[in-house]
Amino acid sequence: MKLNIALLAGDGIGPEVINEAVKVSDAVAQKYGHEITWKPALTGAAAIDAVGEPYPDSTHEVCKNADAVLFGAIGHPKYDNDPSAPVRPEQGLLKMRKALGLFANVRPTFTFPSLLDKSPLKRERIEGTDLVFLRELTGGIYFGEKGRKDNGDTAYDNCVYTRAEVQRLAKKGFELAMTRSKKLCCVDKANVLETSRLWRETVQTMEKDYPEVEVSYEFVDAVAMRLVQWPNSYDVLITENLFGDILTDEASVISGSMGLMPSASMGAEVSLFEPIHGSYPQATGLNIANPMATILSAAMMFENFGLMEEGKAMRDAVNKALEAGVVTEDLANGGKAYGTKEVGDWLAANV
Amino acid sequence: MKLNIALLAGDGIGPEVINEAVKVSDAVAQKYGHEITWKPALTGAAAIDAVGEPYPDSTHEVCKNADAVLFGAIGHPKYDNDPSAPVRPEQGLLKMRKALGLFANVRPTFTFPSLLDKSPLKRERIEGTDLVFLRELTGGIYFGEKGRKDNGDTAYDNCVYTRAEVQRLAKKGFELAMTRSKKLCCVDKANVLETSRLWRETVQTMEKDYPEVEVSYEFVDAVAMRLVQWPNSYDVLITENLFGDILTDEASVISGSMGLMPSASMGAEVSLFEPIHGSYPQATGLNIANPMATILSAAMMFENFGLMEEGKAMRDAVNKALEAGVVTEDLANGGKAYGTKEVGDWLAANV
Ligand SMILES: CC(C)[C@H](C(=O)O)[C@@H](O)C(=O)O
Ligand SMILES: CC(C)[C@H](C(=O)O)[C@@H](O)C(=O)O
Repeated sequence: MKLNIALLAGDGIGPEVINEAVKVSDAVAQKYGHEITWKPALTGAAAIDAVGEPYPDSTHEVCKNADAVLFGAIGHPKYDNDPSAPVRPEQGLLKMRKALGLFANVRPTFTFPSLLDKSPLKRERIEGTDLVFLRELTGGIYFGEKGRKDNGDTAYDNCVYTRAEVQRLAKKGFELAMTRSKKLCCVDKANVLETSRLWRETVQTMEKDYPEVEVSYEFVDAVAMRLVQWPNSYDVLITENLFGDILTDEASVISGSMGLMPSASMGAEVSLFEPIHGSYPQATGLNIANPMATILSAAMMFENFGLMEEGKAMRDAVNKALEAGVVTEDLANGGKAYGTKEVGDWLAANV
Repeated sequence: MKLNIALLAGDGIGPEVINEAVKVSDAVAQKYGHEITWKPALTGAAAIDAVGEPYPDSTHEVCKNADAVLFGAIGHPKYDNDPSAPVRPEQGLLKMRKALGLFANVRPTFTFPSLLDKSPLKRERIEGTDLVFLRELTGGIYFGEKGRKDNGDTAYDNCVYTRAEVQRLAKKGFELAMTRSKKLCCVDKANVLETSRLWRETVQTMEKDYPEVEVSYEFVDAVAMRLVQWPNSYDVLITENLFGDILTDEASVISGSMGLMPSASMGAEVSLFEPIHGSYPQATGLNIANPMATILSAAMMFENFGLMEEGKAMRDAVNKALEAGVVTEDLANGGKAYGTKEVGDWLAANV
């Protein structure tokens, strides 16, 4: 297969972890006879510094014409203090999601047997957890009309959803559930919000098309609780944009392996793959960042092209490295810590 | 002091836990020379069954003219399956909050040394946790305009906040912080929402009036993570209605003592006190429900009248009961379980 991959390294440790993901992806591609052409493009603070905006048109061109996008991380402390500044890295992220139509954010939370003790939860609470959130990513209150009235003394944000948007996301959820344990949880606040009632009724209507899938409906506040109490009681969860933002981040810390969690944002044309961790500015250039989440994101990318063996090879290599203790300092537990590059080298040699 | 207290027992175990709170409150009142007149009124499913609506005008009259409201729990399984049904217990809750102007929901999360092992979190994560959320309760997306367009295919919910609403809540937050460790965290999503930017800028403007309070600003997704990772790093947190709904519920499970957590909803005229747990319908009438959260809510009520010793007497009695093992089955840990009434009797005798 010939693959054109847009490469958006971003800020902070982004470039370092992306380098290793490229290294390991190339090793897999070589082994299985594929050819990857990487197309680097600017994003985040790096793009603001270079051309004045976080998701420039030139970057959009590269992404739009690629088979997929591999993304590092964005965000820089110099933009942290004023969330209302007109140009901020996050604005680029939202613009990119909308422009590329990345409507479904796929966020797995799973555990590694060797890392169970890093969880803030007790072992018996976290053991066996393997869930996936599908977060709607291009609608809701993020993209509704917002503004001020009354000389700035009143602010508003409108949350809007259409039935078609819900169907598109829910369809992915049902399909994903069919490949797993056939359990789907629709997370909403249908006892208060009209948009949630639209979500719930739309999903209810779709149930008949997936008779094997057992669907449950839970309020967002109840899910926020149960994620801490019994995370392993969940499998596939679907939800709207803002609830997804909060709950996927909550879910990401329960495993204790946040530095290892990959994600995908699926669009109709092109999809994007990125680690869930941030740009970790303090670690920039120190060769200490953990590249595994980005490498596992690249594995999701391969699998999304139908290259299942290739994805599995990368995943297996990461498991082997964890068992062999070939890990960066965040996972070293007082033992020997390898550098970002060295972990990448080891994985490239072991796929 | 002569006190008129509206008594809204509600559904499920509500009447049972309210009975014990009345018993213990009366014991304290007698000891300290106060006189409480209890004014029972209907609410929840019980009110729907009796008069067709969950918060009837007659109940509002009782609450409005009382010095405070003591509330049990509402909700009944027969209303669980259809969140869009026109008459539901929750609608009564929202109507009551708005009609009584209960704008600040106070939700403490703290730990009891003897119950640390009930937490889903590891001991070192939860030890020492003592935080309070102030959740705005009468504004935001809960009460904004909502509806459908396009033949029902588009739904919307509007989130609106005014500067005055934010100031009113934030003022309570600053004042509370001054009585504690002088740390205040404002939780928002100012990188995306205009209402959050209004929150942040309003709180920033108020900082100068409370020079001793150290204020931090955190995004709601980050707080959802840190609550699980390092709950004891927080003290007072203020936030808007929907974020508060999700985060206070998340916070309530980390201590493992949810059956013990009280809450208050403060208004300009009258305030309401209630346990955070639900109506637990399966346990109705079995004399097994834990009345301690309701009793601790009554303690908050006394303290809100400035009766600090009285509140402390109730709190101390609960601690003593926990140490003496005079607890309901949820806390019995295989040991002897007392009934709801027996725990109430013991506490009344020990305040
Ligand atoms: C940076 C921010 C705009 C973004 C979001 O809220 O979607 C982030 O929190 C995320 O989840 O990707
Ligand atoms: C029942 C529901 C309307 C309510 C809310 O969302 O406010 C509840 O979850 C709460 O937190 O008191």
